[in-house]
Formats: sequence, C-alpha cells, structure tokens
Amino acid sequence: MTDFVAFGVDRIRETSPLVHNVTNLVAMTFSANVLIAAGASPIMATAPEETRELAGIAAALVINMGTLTREWIAGAKPAIEGARAAGRPWVLDPVGVGASAFRRETAADLLARSPRIVRGNASEILALAGGIGAGKGVDSTHGAEAAAEAATALAARLRAVVAVTGAVDLVTDGKRSLCVANGHPLLTRTTASGCALTALVGAWAAILDDPLEATAGALAAYGIAAEIAAEQVGGPGSFVPALLDALGALDGATAQSRAKIA
Amino acid sequence: MTDFVAFGVDRIRETSPLVHNVTNLVAMTFSANVLIAAGASPIMATAPEETRELAGIAAALVINMGTLTREWIAGAKPAIEGARAAGRPWVLDPVGVGASAFRRETAADLLARSPRIVRGNASEILALAGGIGAGKGVDSTHGAEAAAEAATALAARLRAVVAVTGAVDLVTDGKRSLCVANGHPLLTRTTASGCALTALVGAWAAILDDPLEATAGALAAYGIAAEIAAEQVGGPGSFVPALLDALGALDGATAQSRAKIA
Amino acid sequence: MTDFVAFGVDRIRETSPLVHNVTNLVAMTFSANVLIAAGASPIMATAPEETRELAGIAAALVINMGTLTREWIAGAKPAIEGARAAGRPWVLDPVGVGASAFRRETAADLLARSPRIVRGNASEILALAGGIGAGKGVDSTHGAEAAAEAATALAARLRAVVAVTGAVDLVTDGKRSLCVANGHPLLTRTTASGCALTALVGAWAAILDDPLEATAGALAAYGIAAEIAAEQVGGPGSFVPALLDALGALDGATAQSRAKIA
Repeated sequence: MTDFVAFGVDRIRETSPLVHNVTNLVAMTFSANVLIAAGASPIMATAPEETRELAGIAAALVINMGTLTREWIAGAKPAIEGARAAGRPWVLDPVGVGASAFRRETAADLLARSPRIVRGNASEILALAGGIGAGKGVDSTHGAEAAAEAATALAARLRAVVAVTGAVDLVTDGKRSLCVANGHPLLTRTTASGCALTALVGAWAAILDDPLEATAGALAAYGIAAEIAAEQVGGPGSFVPALLDALGALDGATAQSRAKIA
Repeated sequence: MTDFVAFGVDRIRETSPLVHNVTNLVAMTFSANVLIAAGASPIMATAPEETRELAGIAAALVINMGTLTREWIAGAKPAIEGARAAGRPWVLDPVGVGASAFRRETAADLLARSPRIVRGNASEILALAGGIGAGKGVDSTHGAEAAAEAATALAARLRAVVAVTGAVDLVTDGKRSLCVANGHPLLTRTTASGCALTALVGAWAAILDDPLEATAGALAAYGIAAEIAAEQVGGPGSFVPALLDALGALDGATAQSRAKIA
Repeated sequence: MTDFVAFGVDRIRETSPLVHNVTNLVAMTFSANVLIAAGASPIMATAPEETRELAGIAAALVINMGTLTREWIAGAKPAIEGARAAGRPWVLDPVGVGASAFRRETAADLLARSPRIVRGNASEILALAGGIGAGKGVDSTHGAEAAAEAATALAARLRAVVAVTGAVDLVTDGKRSLCVANGHPLLTRTTASGCALTALVGAWAAILDDPLEATAGALAAYGIAAEIAAEQVGGPGSFVPALLDALGALDGATAQSRAKIA
C-alpha cells in the first residue's frame, strides 16, 4: 500500500479544496462541519439559478438525494453539468434508492451523467445494480460482502468507482478493489453519518487523481476518526462532537499508521 | 399502572420500527437522532412523488408543520393518505398553530384527516381547540393545566389522543387521562425538543396498540432521558448530546422505575 | 464606553424578544439554539403565506440568504415588508454574495429595502460595496481591515450599520465606528457560526435603539462566549455545545468586564 492516506489527509488541510454540496436537509449541517474539520471548504447550495456556476468554481461536487424533491433535481442537474464542463469530479450518494419509484428513477437518471464515484450501503448499491426490491428504507439491510458482486458489475458498467460501506467497506473500479476495515458501530447510530462521509469523499476526489485511492483514503480517515472518538464517549450523542474533534485533529502520519486498507 | 413503559422502551429497540417523518427543517436532524437513539429507524422525506409510498412501508407517520410551506402541504397529504390506507397510525405536531392564519387553516385541514395522536404545548392545543388568538409564536405561553379542558374536548371531538406537554404533561383520549411528570427545564432551552418528542411518539404508536399508553410511554421515556442528561451537564448546548446518550442507554426496567405516570 | 453590553445581555434574558428568521438550511437549528441560549425566542419560517404576518408580531427580523432559492426570495420579501410596516428592525446576512450572479442580484434587491444592519465577512462586504469579483465562496478571503473603507462607504450609502467580522470586527454607521476584538479562531471552524451571530444581532436590535451599539454588543457577547467555550474544549465538534453553554450562562456584568470594544 502506498502512502496516499497520509498524503490526502495533509493535502486537504494544506489546500482547503472547495466542495460544492447539493445535499439533503438532514445532512447539511453535519456534512459542512465534517468538511471543515477535515480542512476543506464547503458550499451548500441547490438553486438551479446558481448551481452550474458554483460547481464550476468548486474543486469537486457531491450529489446526495436524501430528501429528494423536484426542486432538488432541478438544481442537481445543472450542478453536474457545471462540474463536468469544468472537468471536476462529482460523487453520488443514492440515499434510500430502493425505497420508492421516484428514487429509483432519479438515481437512474443521475447514474447516466457519469459520476466519478458512487458511495452507498449494501442495500443501495444492490438497488442501483438492478436488484429491484433489494432494499427498503435508508438503512442497509444487507452485509457489505453480499453486495460485492453487484458493486463490481456496477463499477464496470459506469466506468466509475463504487464504494459499499458497512462493517468492512469495499471500494472497486470494476477491476481493482480495496477493502477498508476502519470505522465504529456508533456511526450506524448517527443520522447522516454516511452522507457526511460522502461529502468527505468529495474533498478527497478534489485532491487525488485516482478515484479508487481517493475513496479508500476518505473512508479510512473517517473511520479512524470514528475509532478515536468512540474511545472517548459512551453514546451516540456525544459521539458526534467527538468525531468532529478527532477529524479536526487527525494528521497524515497518524491516519497512515492506523489505516486498515487491503 | 401497567408495565407498558418497560415494554415499549425494550420493544422499540428489539423491532426497530420504521418511522416516516414529514417534518420541519429545524427539527430534522435532531428528530432522526432521537429516533435512532431510541432504537427506531427514521425516514425523512416530503416530496409528494413518494410520500404515499413511503408512508405505506413505514410503521407510523409523523407530521410536523414547523416550517410550513405549500410544498410541505403537498407532500404531507399523500403521506397521510398512504398511512391511513395501510392502517398505520399518524401523529400530528401543530407547531406554532396560533401564529398565523396559514397555520390555523392548515391545521384545521390536517385535523380532519384523522390523526391518532396530536401533541402540542398549551398554546397550540388551545389554538387547535378553537381559541383563536389563544397563543402566538411557537413557544407556549400557557400552563398545561389551563389547556386540560381544551385537550379533553378536542380529543373527544377528534376521537384521538391529545397530549399537552409542559412542566407536567397531560395525555387524554377524551375519557381516560394520564399525567406524566417526567422531564427537565433544559428541554425548553433546546430548539425542536418538542418536535423530536413527537417523532418519538410516532415510534411508540408503531409498537403499542393503545395510543394513550403509547403517548404517555414516549413522554415518560423522553422525560427520563432528559432528567438523566441534566444530571451531567450545565447548559443547553451539552444537554443535546447528553440527552441522546441517555436515550440510547435507557432500558425498559430503568424507564419503568423512574416513570412518573398517574 | 457605556455599559450597553451589560444592559443588552441582561435585557434579552429579561424580555425574551421574539426574533423572526428567514434563514438558510445549514444555519437553522444552530441559530435557533443560539437565540434560545441568549434568552431570545426564535421563529424560523419562510412561506410567503405567513412571513408578513409573522414579521409583524416579532420584535426583529433576520434575513440570511445562505441557501438561496426563488422560494426563499418569495418569503423574504413579504417578511421585510411586514417588519417595515410594523416599524421593526431587520438585519441582512449576505452569505456568499460574491459567489454567483444570482446572489449578487438578490443582495442588491434586498439592500434597496432598507436593512437596519448588514453583517458579513470581508469578502461579502467588499462584494456588496461594488467590488465585483471581490470574493468567491462563502468563506472570507480578505482581512477585515481591507474592507473597512468599503464598509464605511456602504453604511453611508445605505444609512445602515455595516459590520465586517473577522479576527477583529468593525462596526460602522458611516460616521461612527467601533472595533470589537472578542472571539476565537474555532468560530471559523464551525459552519454557520456567522449566520448564528447575525441571528443574535437581530435579538440585540430588538432591545437596543442604537443599531451601532446593538451590533457591537451582539458581536462582543458572542465573541466572549466563544472565548469561554474555547478554554474548555480542544476541537471544533465539542466547541459547538460549549459555545451554547457559555452563551446560556453569560450575564451582563461578565460580558461588560470582558468586552473589548474600542
């Protein structure tokens, strides 16, 4: 394994990449604070009148369909066009894609617009890969391993990196794969923890050329911060500020030494 | 008093009921975290394209009009239709109903759609019961006792359970009444603490058949968690994570022993 | 220096002014909690059907364009009309005004509607004052000093108070100026900390007649709370609850003794 984890953690803090988020209403504040703690600079904006322009000045774009509406779609599409026109990577979080026809149709439309990276839980990735009825709701009901085959096929089809997060995360571009074993169960007891992770993937995609390494690095850094935070707290409430503190204090050398990437 | 408090606390953690929230923008993240801490599984979604479908797969629906808009109404109505068609209970939080004509008209429309439970502060319940000008703004300016008569009449008229929360909470179905004396003043210094409580009432309505017991159980559990949290903190900021920690650690036996329900 | 800092801190807690916020989605919960911690009473509502009515019953109005949309504009305009008709002050936070044409046009329209106070970072105030391209994104890239001339000219043109916040804050009405040196760098690592400060300025504008003193008092009180919080925490996550705790415990005498206003 190369030292891309150390490089990425420090590089985000040194360069403070601007990450544009067209995200959901539950995750907005937490995602912004995760990006700031890691050293990046967030913009949260969804109006179609400005998302194309904002995506063009940002270093990466994150699209999260958690609280999906027609108005959100109207803002997300020009954002993606702006990012692509500027040659910037964009990352998709297909929150709860299995839960409704509206989500499935929207996700299919977005997938056709060339995301560089897609991050979801096993249920979401299975649903994206074509498994209609594969999952219901926004929480995963499948193990990450069961979704590995679907993720690999989806990555090959999309020519993108697909990450399935769970107890052990899988990151694949259809040919190469990495497993990331960092993290803590308290993340599953914090709303929008996956959404905020996807925002962090956006920051990493802004500063690393290889989207496989960018995704694995973000997953490892976030998981390590969660491990450090969980050592200090006893419940899901105090975990949130502790996670932000740990992310804010994380340096590249520590992250590299604790990363469990195989 | 039966042991429904112990039963409810443990049952939510064992069965993790899916609770669909069409809620307000201030309360969204906190409500989701309260539900997760208690063991339930939240969905927050308001688009009219999917709320009927989502309400049908959820075990209960919570409707909170805190940041009321025309778009919110358009999503709330099919959600209610979906819940009723599926035989699922729905809970109304009429936030700030006395503050504007728009809120009074919307609340009247929603009340006609057969909520199983309505939870508000004294001002809100008085406004719902017909006391125009009874309260202004979203914070209560009346004691819970003063609203007891209005709550009983409203419950009888709606054939629903009505809860008036305050220093001591009143829960009534128009015939039977319970008082819940758990809680702490720091709850009044936390935005959306009432909204998050209503979300928790939704989780209890999903697992207890008697809406009177479901409401009283949720109020007691939340109030007990607030009492435990307040023992450990000194201000309204650290109270929020401590409340989530306490709710996350609460077990049925502890809740039953500390419940003050009469 | 008069004792307006002590007066204001205590007066807000004694009178609990109702502050109407038409604000952004990232800042909503935090702003409400800051207002409550300081002793004020928040309403967050943006629907055009009710904002005029709500602004009329509130003691002050805060307009924050952080997550700008056409729907937000439709609600903000009648809110301003309602506040002006009732003779109530309104405060503008021009978040990220330099970042897009949509923001510049909206800010110009709002500025023509007679805000009593405008608070922004140096980039935002420079953009408002006519410096097209003066700043990009929502974080400041200019020192507060560099914006002093622009702020003074803008204040004179608008006949309003303009505050430029940074390491040292400048508050000016075009003739008189105050510098506020309270605060802590952790504020820059917390999303929406500036937005929540603007909400607090609204509470101060409700209880002090002189908008210059109201603005300086709010900036000092918030900065002092940040200093106290930072003494107790090590990172940006635990800083947020500590800031609310400190704001909730602050009394007028302490605030007056720690205020650095010149």
